Amino acid sequence: MSVTVEFHYDFGSPNTYYCHRVIPEIERRTGIRFKYTPVLLGGIFRSTNNIPPIQQFAEVKNKLEYHALETARFVKKHDIDRFVFNPAFPVNTLLLMRGAIFASDKEYYEKYIEASYQGMWELGLDMSKPDLAGKHLSESGLPAEEILSSTQSPDVKQQLIDSTALSVEKGNFGSPTFFVGNEMFFGKDRLYHVEEEIIKQLG
Amino acid sequence: MSVTVEFHYDFGSPNTYYCHRVIPEIERRTGIRFKYTPVLLGGIFRSTNNIPPIQQFAEVKNKLEYHALETARFVKKHDIDRFVFNPAFPVNTLLLMRGAIFASDKEYYEKYIEASYQGMWELGLDMSKPDLAGKHLSESGLPAEEILSSTQSPDVKQQLIDSTALSVEKGNFGSPTFFVGNEMFFGKDRLYHVEEEIIKQLG
Repeated sequence: MSVTVEFHYDFGSPNTYYCHRVIPEIERRTGIRFKYTPVLLGGIFRSTNNIPPIQQFAEVKNKLEYHALETARFVKKHDIDRFVFNPAFPVNTLLLMRGAIFASDKEYYEKYIEASYQGMWELGLDMSKPDLAGKHLSESGLPAEEILSSTQSPDVKQQLIDSTALSVEKGNFGSPTFFVGNEMFFGKDRLYHVEEEIIKQLG
Repeated sequence: MSVTVEFHYDFGSPNTYYCHRVIPEIERRTGIRFKYTPVLLGGIFRSTNNIPPIQQFAEVKNKLEYHALETARFVKKHDIDRFVFNPAFPVNTLLLMRGAIFASDKEYYEKYIEASYQGMWELGLDMSKPDLAGKHLSESGLPAEEILSSTQSPDVKQQLIDSTALSVEKGNFGSPTFFVGNEMFFGKDRLYHVEEEIIKQLG
């Protein structure tokens, strides 16, 4: 008996980076591999009329301070020690997410994910810039030219649009979002419940 | 070694009712009693410029459906089976919360809390109405007249204002909110972390 776990991610969201660092712990404990599903967060926001919390709660006293506190707790609990806030934030991730679509059926998909997250949230590179992204991917041992040129393919473009639309159709409105079977969970602080649900579905 | 746990609550919030039904489990497991601190949620919203999620996310596709899903999961997990959505929602809780301030140093405080939550979220009474509230409190074995007349006392009114202001000063922006020592947690889905923090502080 197996369980399907999808992680709908966009490299532009630091919260998905935090999740990416914790997912291996859950994979180890449950024996279930997470499937990384590329989505474009900007597209999800547009089609659900959502906005990032930092805008949503900009005028609310105490709220963003509490969000920061929760993040600090999460980081501490999971010993996440290489994070740097990207100075180019918010980074347009259209290039990176199209690259993810292209890479998703290649044997180097995991390496691509790892390199992209490192570039975005450990090295703080502006990965929207093809030259910077290409250099970093190449230095990470990836076929940068092949990946970057794929991002101009109409088929790759359409697949990212479709993946994003399907995610919204399944109930998504933001990121990070998880589907354990059909059960949706939103937010890094739901990883505990994601694991609980995996164990439940494993029976 | 003891740990101080404050539950900042307003009877008007169904999420605080759900918490109220789960707190006894945590008290049993940890041996720590929660201190119930009355606050006026409307006052917190005004002074932090916050609004209820149902307004905040009214135009966001999928978001409120997900909130409902999370509530359904919580209710199922904790076997909460007597909840009815109050037909008079949103109920003005000024009367009830002033009553809570007055009752908070009486030996019947717990009984008052229980009766008020039952009235609001199991019987669905419009507890903003002094006659209805009084009848229900009286039937619950409480000195309704004494409690209701206290709600006109300038001292009681001021204490509720002060309690609400202090809550915001400590970092609160909504309800349900918990303080374990100085560590704040927001939302019914943080009860797991509240318990974790209690255990941590107990050493």
